[in-house]
Amino acid sequence: MKTPSPLSQLIDALRVLPGVGPKSAQRMAYHLLQRDQAGASQLAHALANALTSLRNCARCNTFTEHELCELCAAPGRDDQQLCVVEMPADLLRMEQTLAFKGRYFVLMGRLSPLDGVGPGDIHFEKLLARAQDGVVQEVILSTNFTVEGEATAHYLAELLRTQGLRVSRIARGLPVGGELEHVDSSTLAQALIERRSL
Amino acid sequence: MKTPSPLSQLIDALRVLPGVGPKSAQRMAYHLLQRDQAGASQLAHALANALTSLRNCARCNTFTEHELCELCAAPGRDDQQLCVVEMPADLLRMEQTLAFKGRYFVLMGRLSPLDGVGPGDIHFEKLLARAQDGVVQEVILSTNFTVEGEATAHYLAELLRTQGLRVSRIARGLPVGGELEHVDSSTLAQALIERRSL
Repeated sequence: MKTPSPLSQLIDALRVLPGVGPKSAQRMAYHLLQRDQAGASQLAHALANALTSLRNCARCNTFTEHELCELCAAPGRDDQQLCVVEMPADLLRMEQTLAFKGRYFVLMGRLSPLDGVGPGDIHFEKLLARAQDGVVQEVILSTNFTVEGEATAHYLAELLRTQGLRVSRIARGLPVGGELEHVDSSTLAQALIERRSL
Repeated sequence: MKTPSPLSQLIDALRVLPGVGPKSAQRMAYHLLQRDQAGASQLAHALANALTSLRNCARCNTFTEHELCELCAAPGRDDQQLCVVEMPADLLRMEQTLAFKGRYFVLMGRLSPLDGVGPGDIHFEKLLARAQDGVVQEVILSTNFTVEGEATAHYLAELLRTQGLRVSRIARGLPVGGELEHVDSSTLAQALIERRSL
């Protein structure tokens, strides 16, 4: 007995989702068809709607429905500081701190040679053009402190410095409320290296 | 800054998938929009297509494009034996053994009080009607040997026995090639209890 073809097509299609293998794709398809047809229909519409109505912001590269995202269009922010993050979620996280009043650039990814993501797949030219608008003075690299995020930051630092821009990196160190006893050695070592004079 | 609404709608919609929480929904949405728009579009179509063209087989309850699935429509199978499985994948697995030539009934789930799945959510009436067609002699319960699958089998055994049907359960025991040294105690104990005379 063959699996009916619309079902196997759905199972195959679900595998485009990151982290979803054949087993979970099958489980998802069964769940949607048997238990949540309304949710499945909503998902189909949300996908189609997002694909037609979202694009990358012309300035900061995040997802937006308009030419410019709300943040790029917002007046009264510091145009001299450009904070570079990996994903829109990082931008939101940064905004929640209320500690940064400059502009952003969202890479929509990170260098990850193992996953086949090289400099060409990240919007580096767009960042370069953005950073060289004549107003930006400092580029603050706020990629994650993962291997990929660090590699991306190093690469970008080289690239941007050759264009005569001031480049900085957010600090590593102990978290607020962090105790020396419970922090890992490399974070502690880094916190020591990056100590500030008081 | 708010997340643009088609994006947050997509993230919400992805959460209908089993095992997908807010974080992975976000990661999936970004991935689809940034790296695989073709895949996303295919997924939207596959969902819509599966929803319109698939239904439950009138006899065995599995997914099919027609009134009866291929297996129920197939001639030359033993109509006296009815094998009850949880999901279509279990049916396929059973067919691969080439050891069963009877008919199937697919529950499309299992009793799982913790997930709010009670007898009403599983198609027990449909199974009862199917098993009482006057031809079926034996119902072979082939639900999983998980807590839920076992509970489902016990419940069904009671229900079907009161209808005067012969009910059996597939055997527990050591796997083919299994070594006593490496099998868990409860499986070994069960294999002892369910020993066959030679």
